[in-house]
Amino acid sequence: MARIVMKFGGTSMAGTERIRNVASRVKTAVEAGHEVAVVVSAMAGETDRLVGFCREAAPLATPAEYDVVVAAGEQVTAGLLAITLQAMGVRARSWLGWQLPIRTSDAHGTARIEGIDTTAVLASMAAGEVAVVPGFQGMTAGGRVTTLGRGGSDTSAVALAAALGAERCDIYTDVDGVYTTDPRIVPRAQKLSRITYEEMLELASVGAKVLQTRSVELAMKEKVRVQVLSSFSDAPGTLVVDESEDDVEQQLIAGVAYDKSEAKVTLVGVPDRPGVVAAIFGPLADANVNVDMIVQNIAKDEGKTDVTFTVPRAQLPLSLDVLDRAHADIGHAALLSDAAVAKISVVGVGMRSHAGVAATMFRALATRGINIQAITTSEIKVSVLIAEEYVELAVRVLHTAYGLDGAEPPAPDTISGTAMETA
Amino acid sequence: MARIVMKFGGTSMAGTERIRNVASRVKTAVEAGHEVAVVVSAMAGETDRLVGFCREAAPLATPAEYDVVVAAGEQVTAGLLAITLQAMGVRARSWLGWQLPIRTSDAHGTARIEGIDTTAVLASMAAGEVAVVPGFQGMTAGGRVTTLGRGGSDTSAVALAAALGAERCDIYTDVDGVYTTDPRIVPRAQKLSRITYEEMLELASVGAKVLQTRSVELAMKEKVRVQVLSSFSDAPGTLVVDESEDDVEQQLIAGVAYDKSEAKVTLVGVPDRPGVVAAIFGPLADANVNVDMIVQNIAKDEGKTDVTFTVPRAQLPLSLDVLDRAHADIGHAALLSDAAVAKISVVGVGMRSHAGVAATMFRALATRGINIQAITTSEIKVSVLIAEEYVELAVRVLHTAYGLDGAEPPAPDTISGTAMETA
Repeated sequence: MARIVMKFGGTSMAGTERIRNVASRVKTAVEAGHEVAVVVSAMAGETDRLVGFCREAAPLATPAEYDVVVAAGEQVTAGLLAITLQAMGVRARSWLGWQLPIRTSDAHGTARIEGIDTTAVLASMAAGEVAVVPGFQGMTAGGRVTTLGRGGSDTSAVALAAALGAERCDIYTDVDGVYTTDPRIVPRAQKLSRITYEEMLELASVGAKVLQTRSVELAMKEKVRVQVLSSFSDAPGTLVVDESEDDVEQQLIAGVAYDKSEAKVTLVGVPDRPGVVAAIFGPLADANVNVDMIVQNIAKDEGKTDVTFTVPRAQLPLSLDVLDRAHADIGHAALLSDAAVAKISVVGVGMRSHAGVAATMFRALATRGINIQAITTSEIKVSVLIAEEYVELAVRVLHTAYGLDGAEPPAPDTISGTAMETA
Repeated sequence: MARIVMKFGGTSMAGTERIRNVASRVKTAVEAGHEVAVVVSAMAGETDRLVGFCREAAPLATPAEYDVVVAAGEQVTAGLLAITLQAMGVRARSWLGWQLPIRTSDAHGTARIEGIDTTAVLASMAAGEVAVVPGFQGMTAGGRVTTLGRGGSDTSAVALAAALGAERCDIYTDVDGVYTTDPRIVPRAQKLSRITYEEMLELASVGAKVLQTRSVELAMKEKVRVQVLSSFSDAPGTLVVDESEDDVEQQLIAGVAYDKSEAKVTLVGVPDRPGVVAAIFGPLADANVNVDMIVQNIAKDEGKTDVTFTVPRAQLPLSLDVLDRAHADIGHAALLSDAAVAKISVVGVGMRSHAGVAATMFRALATRGINIQAITTSEIKVSVLIAEEYVELAVRVLHTAYGLDGAEPPAPDTISGTAMETA
């Protein structure tokens, strides 16, 4: 009775047997009377294969042609799902990015969706045909193929749901929802029935890879109700909604996330004078290093201060090189680094109206002797940097401290989410 | 200084290393001052992989969606070749079937090219950009993806050459030209420097798989000069031209071909009355059986005759079943079949003006005791049906009888053509 968008990821589309499983779910939705548009990813591994070809062809493949190559993966699964649906007696047709079209910017490889023409597809859906749309791809105003960047199919699905005025965008993936933390670390982690866009965004940015960040931003902007659920089980998923909708069981903290992808850099004995911070972070920005947590201590004796920040681990050698070359401008006494760190974050819209969230965190970590190396906060998040070896302990301690522990897990063979895992 | 189309088959595009080899050849043509359009096949094996997915999805995949899936293979190689050319400093861009567009009928899976819009691509080529066009694919008037059927990339190349008014269409393949016969059977087979469209058509129809039949028909109709050459050697290839151009070394016979894909069917004791032939071949046509050679003997005693014909071996069981069911209408005394037969053909425009070609054939075969089971002729071809076990002997004998033997082959490791092999 509603118009819905269903999106299936690469694991769900990996091979014709799994595509049949996807088709069955679509068929069920159609038989329930829904008008259905399906957005599909390429088969798991296929995009990597195509990207590999491009890299072999040229280390710096021209983005416009890279897009032509990698967009082929979703074209294949879109056609295969349409074939499978038709074989099951469900009317369906594929709509490629250029056929709708999905109009994008011409930033090849990382294009942004600018609009989706829905006249033809809405007519087709109204006539009872399932629309199968390859995710990840679009077309420039000049008629060239574009792609949205890795994970872009989530964004395709949310954008299509917004353009179609769909009641809901169901994102089927290989986890069955968003958990209070990584169930592999905390077996008593609980699946959230609801989470707000803001919380989902903060969790995504600290390493929970359930949904691509851009898709959550878009869902928030366009007020698209997103549901995360597993294509391999019938368990209810997690609904990502506007804060105004999230009135049930208001939790202080939605979840505890960790991120082991960063490294810590400390500049010791930096002269505390105007412009010195720019001398540090200007060259890093020029080198496209994404600096995250930044801590600057109050100036100590002799007008010297220490500056600590984190960078992606993969960019640590580059960062150290950039800072060495900027030594004359910065004037630091020493340059230290540590890759064996981890960022632990607690996220929840409830902390807007509750004091003491950070204090609870610091106290809980202190009781286990875990030293905090840096702290950053946002309105709905507190993150701390700790030694990597304490990650599991810290996550468990915080999960308990915020009252997130659920019942003991029923059986070891249950499909477990990995919602909070670092990418 | 000329506008040329270069077409590369699946073996030539199998992997990035081979695509680099293709790009080098294109670069050489560009540096020679040519305006170049390149038509590419999918990587060898890729179309089979995609077809396999479709069959797994549904034994009878809907053709429109089948086309969406299988067209992806050429899209990938087109993008990869453009990337590789650009990395070599050659300006290039891909033009997908829907981007030119290549307009086709809507007979999905076996679409026919109806026209190619060349305004944009000609402007791009005139500005010094190589046009890379995926073969095999096109677009219907309604904007859906089509494919031309297996081997359709040759047809794409010839059609593009005609539309662009190209001076030549070079078909690069894994053989280095068209031979007087299969060099694996006759080591002294010679590569033809020229062959007429008509001869090429007859050779193609009797099993020489160098060029797709439709591409030769189109080249003949549009007067496109086609050159067959190897992408793995620099040897000169075979030029397929109009008969008026073929004035050099006019040979009586262009080549000797064989075809082991047929089976013989004989209806014994068929009543020799009006309508009986229709009673035989009508039901076969209704069952989509492609009947080839047909021999009907003069009526013998009692108004009975025998009818012999060939059908594709794969369709033999179907054919026998159809004829059994039509027994009441045909009234034959017995139904015999033999799959162990082969068709040997000699082809040459020279036989139009020379008598005795068939006689030479029959005499040569008779001297070796090879029995002829059926004979068919066209203006430029004589075909005989013999027992399969005599194939190699017959081909060698005829090759010598028509004076086609060249010098002893130079070395065993030379790349050898398989021009006459049965598909």
